[in-house]
Amino acid sequence: MREFIPPASRFIDLPAGFPMKRGGALYGARIAYETFGRLNAERDNAVLVLTGLSPDAHAASHAGDPAPGWWEAMVGPGKPVDTDLWHVICVNSLGSCKGSTGPASVDPRTGEPYRLAFPELSIEDIADAAAHTVRALGITRLACVVGASMGGMTALALLSRHPELARTHISLSGAVHSLPFSIAVRSLQREAIRSDPGWRRGRYDEETYPRRGMLTARKLGMMTYRSAQEWDGRFGRTRISAQRRAGQGPFGLEFEVESYLDFHAQRFSHCFDPNSYLYLSHAMDQFDLGDSCGGSAAGALSLMRVEKALVMGAQTDILFPPAQQLEIAEGLAAGGAEVEYVPVETPAGHDAFLVDVDRFGPPVAKFLAIVS
Amino acid sequence: MREFIPPASRFIDLPAGFPMKRGGALYGARIAYETFGRLNAERDNAVLVLTGLSPDAHAASHAGDPAPGWWEAMVGPGKPVDTDLWHVICVNSLGSCKGSTGPASVDPRTGEPYRLAFPELSIEDIADAAAHTVRALGITRLACVVGASMGGMTALALLSRHPELARTHISLSGAVHSLPFSIAVRSLQREAIRSDPGWRRGRYDEETYPRRGMLTARKLGMMTYRSAQEWDGRFGRTRISAQRRAGQGPFGLEFEVESYLDFHAQRFSHCFDPNSYLYLSHAMDQFDLGDSCGGSAAGALSLMRVEKALVMGAQTDILFPPAQQLEIAEGLAAGGAEVEYVPVETPAGHDAFLVDVDRFGPPVAKFLAIVS
Repeated sequence: MREFIPPASRFIDLPAGFPMKRGGALYGARIAYETFGRLNAERDNAVLVLTGLSPDAHAASHAGDPAPGWWEAMVGPGKPVDTDLWHVICVNSLGSCKGSTGPASVDPRTGEPYRLAFPELSIEDIADAAAHTVRALGITRLACVVGASMGGMTALALLSRHPELARTHISLSGAVHSLPFSIAVRSLQREAIRSDPGWRRGRYDEETYPRRGMLTARKLGMMTYRSAQEWDGRFGRTRISAQRRAGQGPFGLEFEVESYLDFHAQRFSHCFDPNSYLYLSHAMDQFDLGDSCGGSAAGALSLMRVEKALVMGAQTDILFPPAQQLEIAEGLAAGGAEVEYVPVETPAGHDAFLVDVDRFGPPVAKFLAIVS
Repeated sequence: MREFIPPASRFIDLPAGFPMKRGGALYGARIAYETFGRLNAERDNAVLVLTGLSPDAHAASHAGDPAPGWWEAMVGPGKPVDTDLWHVICVNSLGSCKGSTGPASVDPRTGEPYRLAFPELSIEDIADAAAHTVRALGITRLACVVGASMGGMTALALLSRHPELARTHISLSGAVHSLPFSIAVRSLQREAIRSDPGWRRGRYDEETYPRRGMLTARKLGMMTYRSAQEWDGRFGRTRISAQRRAGQGPFGLEFEVESYLDFHAQRFSHCFDPNSYLYLSHAMDQFDLGDSCGGSAAGALSLMRVEKALVMGAQTDILFPPAQQLEIAEGLAAGGAEVEYVPVETPAGHDAFLVDVDRFGPPVAKFLAIVS
């Protein structure tokens, strides 16, 4: 079992007996976080960033860790989330393997990694842990909570359960729940891991590791993170060299697109704990904002107390399609928030918030300028 | 090794030494076919149907086999492909496991199944074998060649290599080549089979069978055959009953969409030979109509001699997207064919030609009425 903790991450302990929504409680659990930019004297310039499934708390480089972060282009001095103005807090999700407590962490009751003994994880638990972290840092009201992808779900759960905690909200490629296509994708990703003989019901080690299952899961994910149009332009039908094709055996990789998927999946497969992946993926499928309001996501959105919101998504997103962003925008507006809805024409698909900074940056910068 | 041959299929022998485009030759090979409706005295009312990757030659029920065929709603007396008027010939693709010679067939030189000793298969080989079958049945000119999905590719290869063989063409959800997204899907499907320990480089038997790999491959295929919109309406977030969830172990199936995929994939996984699947899937990735014309698919299309063509596709098709149908229509028109291009608004995705008979039937019926 390995955790992958960025060197500059700091930690906030969760209270003993931290209750999990679907049963069980955590003892000795902690949340990893990093901060960027200074908290002002009024303590009212804090912006919380909630991440997608796989990122850690290292959103951007800073003095304590000069390595580029996962949102380097968006967070920093003079960048759309401007750390000359804002005190940005990025938390690693509860259940992850990148510093916060999750299935790869040691259960203090047994001295062994939790593995599948970790209680069922929900998006609401991730939100509660993030809210606790913010408060433990001495912040009672965030200027903004920013959530992208799974982080968009987490932000909605946080706003629903801690309505006074944030003044405004930026939702990027988020959703009030998962639709069947994305459930099917994640179900197949989990199946690839679970059916790898190396998984051993979560009891793998470095030697018996479900590498093949992780590879398939990641490739499948990558196929849904971008768009077919982007790949048409980027790869077309270009083949890899005969040299790189050699020695693969029958039906090996031939096209650039296959090589691209394989390269990135190989890199990922040993940098994320398979059990954590299963827990987080499952939590996304289970999440339904409407659960907090008699089944009505619109009702739950209308009860949120944010003053302003920016809701963005990519028209080419097949995982969290544009109609889901519109749903968030309309729901928040119905509750009285001043909402800006920005559907983005981009070939970058679900990952657009990560890679299409030209299109996502300016609306975020403009929104935060109004908020400040 | 199992073949799955419909009871009423008949056979045409391919000539000894049947040459394969990418090297090698077949001996003792045959093509399975079925016919529907009578050939007229002039022998000019024959319509050839070329199939997608998995169907057999049993396109529809007939006196010899009353079981419903894979295109039952479209082929028969009074149906869009009206067997009161047309003599319909459906061939099982070379390389398949449903009657035509393929990797699951016995190699007469060794007395053992070919498995991976089957020569590399190309769409052009499938087309040549179909053309031979048509001529062996005493038909020198088809009234129409109809191809859907992979069969659309096969039809284009046939029209390119045997330009006098067909007077008109119906292309349904076809393409001149595969784009990177569909290559990625198929690559991952093949990887699922290849990486199943039961595959054993093609040397599986009933006991060591790559069932898990076939399941994953089929689920992945099904995710691309329909559309997310269809699934939203059909499954939403409905869960399966607690009774059906019981006993699955951690992270088992919970949503209807997962259960649907699993049910259909279970059914498929033992009804198609895994090696045949690999060969046919690979042939689709490799196919590029432009190869016959200095890399220009448009050039190859403009050289085809069809008088009329109908080109249809679904706007929700993510595997053979609408732009690929337009490309076929424009290319054939540039060659002087009278072309009708019908993009179809349907939630049924790539499978629309199979399931959305209300939208695909009338244009096909109207086109064939003009042809006759």
